[in-house]
Amino acid sequence: MAISRIQHEGLRQRLMSAEAAAALIPPGAHVGMSGFTGAGYPKAVPQALAARIAAAHARGQDFRIGLWTGASTAPELDGALAKVNAVELRMPYQSDPTGRARINAGEMEYTDIHLSHVAQYVWFGFFGKLDVAVVEVAGILPDGRLIPSTSVGNNKTWLDQADKIILEVNGRMPEGLAGMHDIYYGTALPPERLPIPMTQADQRIGEPYLRCDPAKVIAVVETAQGDRNSKFAEPDAVSAAIAGHLIEFLQHEVKRGRLSPRLLPLQSGVGNIANAVLAGLNNGPFEQLQAYTEVLQDGMLDMLASGKLSHASATALSLSPEAWERFERDIDFYRERVVLRPQEISNHPELIRRLGLIAMNAMIECDLYGNVNSTHVMGSSIMNGIGGSGDFARNAYLSIFMTPSTAKGGKISCLVPMASHVDHTEHDVQIIVTEQGLADLRGLSPKERAALLIERCAHPDYRDALRDYFERARRGAPGQHTPHLLEEALSWHTRYLRQGDMRAAT
Amino acid sequence: MAISRIQHEGLRQRLMSAEAAAALIPPGAHVGMSGFTGAGYPKAVPQALAARIAAAHARGQDFRIGLWTGASTAPELDGALAKVNAVELRMPYQSDPTGRARINAGEMEYTDIHLSHVAQYVWFGFFGKLDVAVVEVAGILPDGRLIPSTSVGNNKTWLDQADKIILEVNGRMPEGLAGMHDIYYGTALPPERLPIPMTQADQRIGEPYLRCDPAKVIAVVETAQGDRNSKFAEPDAVSAAIAGHLIEFLQHEVKRGRLSPRLLPLQSGVGNIANAVLAGLNNGPFEQLQAYTEVLQDGMLDMLASGKLSHASATALSLSPEAWERFERDIDFYRERVVLRPQEISNHPELIRRLGLIAMNAMIECDLYGNVNSTHVMGSSIMNGIGGSGDFARNAYLSIFMTPSTAKGGKISCLVPMASHVDHTEHDVQIIVTEQGLADLRGLSPKERAALLIERCAHPDYRDALRDYFERARRGAPGQHTPHLLEEALSWHTRYLRQGDMRAAT
Repeated sequence: MAISRIQHEGLRQRLMSAEAAAALIPPGAHVGMSGFTGAGYPKAVPQALAARIAAAHARGQDFRIGLWTGASTAPELDGALAKVNAVELRMPYQSDPTGRARINAGEMEYTDIHLSHVAQYVWFGFFGKLDVAVVEVAGILPDGRLIPSTSVGNNKTWLDQADKIILEVNGRMPEGLAGMHDIYYGTALPPERLPIPMTQADQRIGEPYLRCDPAKVIAVVETAQGDRNSKFAEPDAVSAAIAGHLIEFLQHEVKRGRLSPRLLPLQSGVGNIANAVLAGLNNGPFEQLQAYTEVLQDGMLDMLASGKLSHASATALSLSPEAWERFERDIDFYRERVVLRPQEISNHPELIRRLGLIAMNAMIECDLYGNVNSTHVMGSSIMNGIGGSGDFARNAYLSIFMTPSTAKGGKISCLVPMASHVDHTEHDVQIIVTEQGLADLRGLSPKERAALLIERCAHPDYRDALRDYFERARRGAPGQHTPHLLEEALSWHTRYLRQGDMRAAT
Repeated sequence: MAISRIQHEGLRQRLMSAEAAAALIPPGAHVGMSGFTGAGYPKAVPQALAARIAAAHARGQDFRIGLWTGASTAPELDGALAKVNAVELRMPYQSDPTGRARINAGEMEYTDIHLSHVAQYVWFGFFGKLDVAVVEVAGILPDGRLIPSTSVGNNKTWLDQADKIILEVNGRMPEGLAGMHDIYYGTALPPERLPIPMTQADQRIGEPYLRCDPAKVIAVVETAQGDRNSKFAEPDAVSAAIAGHLIEFLQHEVKRGRLSPRLLPLQSGVGNIANAVLAGLNNGPFEQLQAYTEVLQDGMLDMLASGKLSHASATALSLSPEAWERFERDIDFYRERVVLRPQEISNHPELIRRLGLIAMNAMIECDLYGNVNSTHVMGSSIMNGIGGSGDFARNAYLSIFMTPSTAKGGKISCLVPMASHVDHTEHDVQIIVTEQGLADLRGLSPKERAALLIERCAHPDYRDALRDYFERARRGAPGQHTPHLLEEALSWHTRYLRQGDMRAAT
């Protein structure tokens, strides 16, 4: 059965162990691996490479690689390589705890990039040569084309740009994945670029398979292991309240005639709050919805199953084991309703703006004037990365950011005087939602935003302190466009770093 | 002669004085005026409106308006209205000194918006109803269509969206402007949007005239006054050095095969440094260049005249009196080489990304990690606004920001530990240039960026202090991805506010 997944005779000759394949990756190589969330990442070669690198380090040899992916991956990839300190420079996104610890300890460099920018920058040559691609696929066709796995990410670019290719053929992936993907080969370098011919979120504009030059394939490795995506928490009161505010707002927009009852294509970040919003929409008043997003997670699968969502476009299937079972069982149903695209298409500014998305993303903190921090804890430490949130927020019809009003059991306010890092500027943020309420910042000046954010979104424990800062800044700041007292603008963060609580000692 | 500019019989009946026209604008109205830089703004009605509002204020009456434009305008518009405190909310951009003073005194609200976002947000209804449009034109055709003036800006949207229209027909504008504009009427609201059919910077995709419903026109006013754009300073040593570094970098990119010798379409911000760069390009090694930008300023006119630039696309002609004379004299030559478009097209993310621009914009300050502040002085006071810099930087092939390394005679370092406001995040900034040198940040992690920026771009007076901050942050910051000491991250700014110099007292 496994052999039948490799239908190209020449490539069958390149079958080898993960260890043998990993031995073909030289020190210092730029390696482009598949993977977008815990989906479609190579399961065996990264671990074999990690073992090889650990052995080299034990012998006192230098051996590190540049690791490029679609986005985050899983412990078998990011975790295994970070654990042995195998990565010199990581990009464009990662969420592995070991990797995060290495980065924040200064042991691993990390470049955090808009996900829509990655493929083109590699094509432009901005990151240097891509040496090796390691890509998981669900099968190899007789002519060498590849059946993609559960994520597409940057795989098209890795296969096209790498000098050498290592394929992992995962026999655990259902054969019914074939036909679900849409690989667009119409991209080009400027000045030769043409309009991307997509006008509907469910439209197919490409091919179902990845092209691959068999002459570049130096190894084929068989695996048979499922993806690893964890289940989200059941919606709690906080996330349910956020979902409630958001749905009420969308209903209001429909009533005002600014949205149709079918809304516009939904983009949703990943996580517990996003999942709660999707659960809310699944029980909500809107019908025949569409999604144009990065990641199809459990909540969207539920919406497809219920019929609330007619169709979903994504670049990755990021399903919990339980949801995966349902997906696999009804794969013919879902193949009619799901299209998986390269991330340069799922996140493309041209398409996001044209389709007019409703973009819903989580954040770490937001400041009084509507600047959003999505990436850094207390200004210095990376959490995950910006991912696609900038692609979506900048170009969406509606740009929505969500967070509980506090973190760490109330010790951190997610609404602060000044953000300790800015990923989405005041120019890109329209709607802020916490469990306390929703602030619609569209068209407001900075001071108007501040007043609304404090009243609608701040936790009551912090509301007076925010009012106090804002009122004193309105008297004492050197300018009254965005009144700040720079001496204390970041004092909430320094207080937390000093005493573990943003609340002033009482 | 003036009458012949108004060829529509019915509209000729609406001829009246500027005072009579201004009397038709009610208190509280949202007024969309033409104007983009000191080009194509209405010359008479805003001043008459200012007088009317001043008189109302003198009688103790409330009278303010919401003022929307293309971008900045001139003293006769922004200056006159700001002087009498006539503006409640200004958007999307302004650079008038009186307006700036009002905003920073907290007397006038200002919403600073990506210039590509304005038209669509008005169409979406995000800013409420547009009540009155006041648009300068070069003439009215027999069927009521309008010959645009020296800027297009948001005029198409104002004319389409406003309930009532006041036209200023400026007899001073050369008749040869007719045919220079390209007004695209293919935009739509999602989900009905289609690809914008432009693949070359010099391509015409629309119509030469603005459509206008004569039934909405409540007044026509004749004027005969030229635009008001000041001459840029001759390139000094600092701006010439910046231009030199930039041209050397572009030559390097050509040598590496990442750019063709024709480069890619140029976008250039406005100002002395931009003008110096254009002068450098005019004497530089590249031929047959194209421009796709907001503003055609003197430097680009010189490049068109010399043949270095084959073609320029812009939304405004922002020429000094001396350059205007040359333009007017050779208008047939320039009409073959210049196309003026609505700013939603000149700044459209879809087109900027497709065409692959080289985006060159000025900034106020940049921090160690590549975050750029384009709008705020010392965190609180607005300078001008983000304008189109975000549209271009985010979507360009190359995103370049330029500044002298110091300001205020050396008392301000333009490279600081932490930016006091962020308009372009680390994810959107590739190249930083000062007179000291050029830092190519592509693909670098935050710490790698900091090291390069200090060595290449910082002024020697500040280099040691920046190194000191960075080195101490590398030891003492709570995280080593973007090492910051939050207690002192903004101390350079607070020191300047306190003692008028960012340099530590010695």
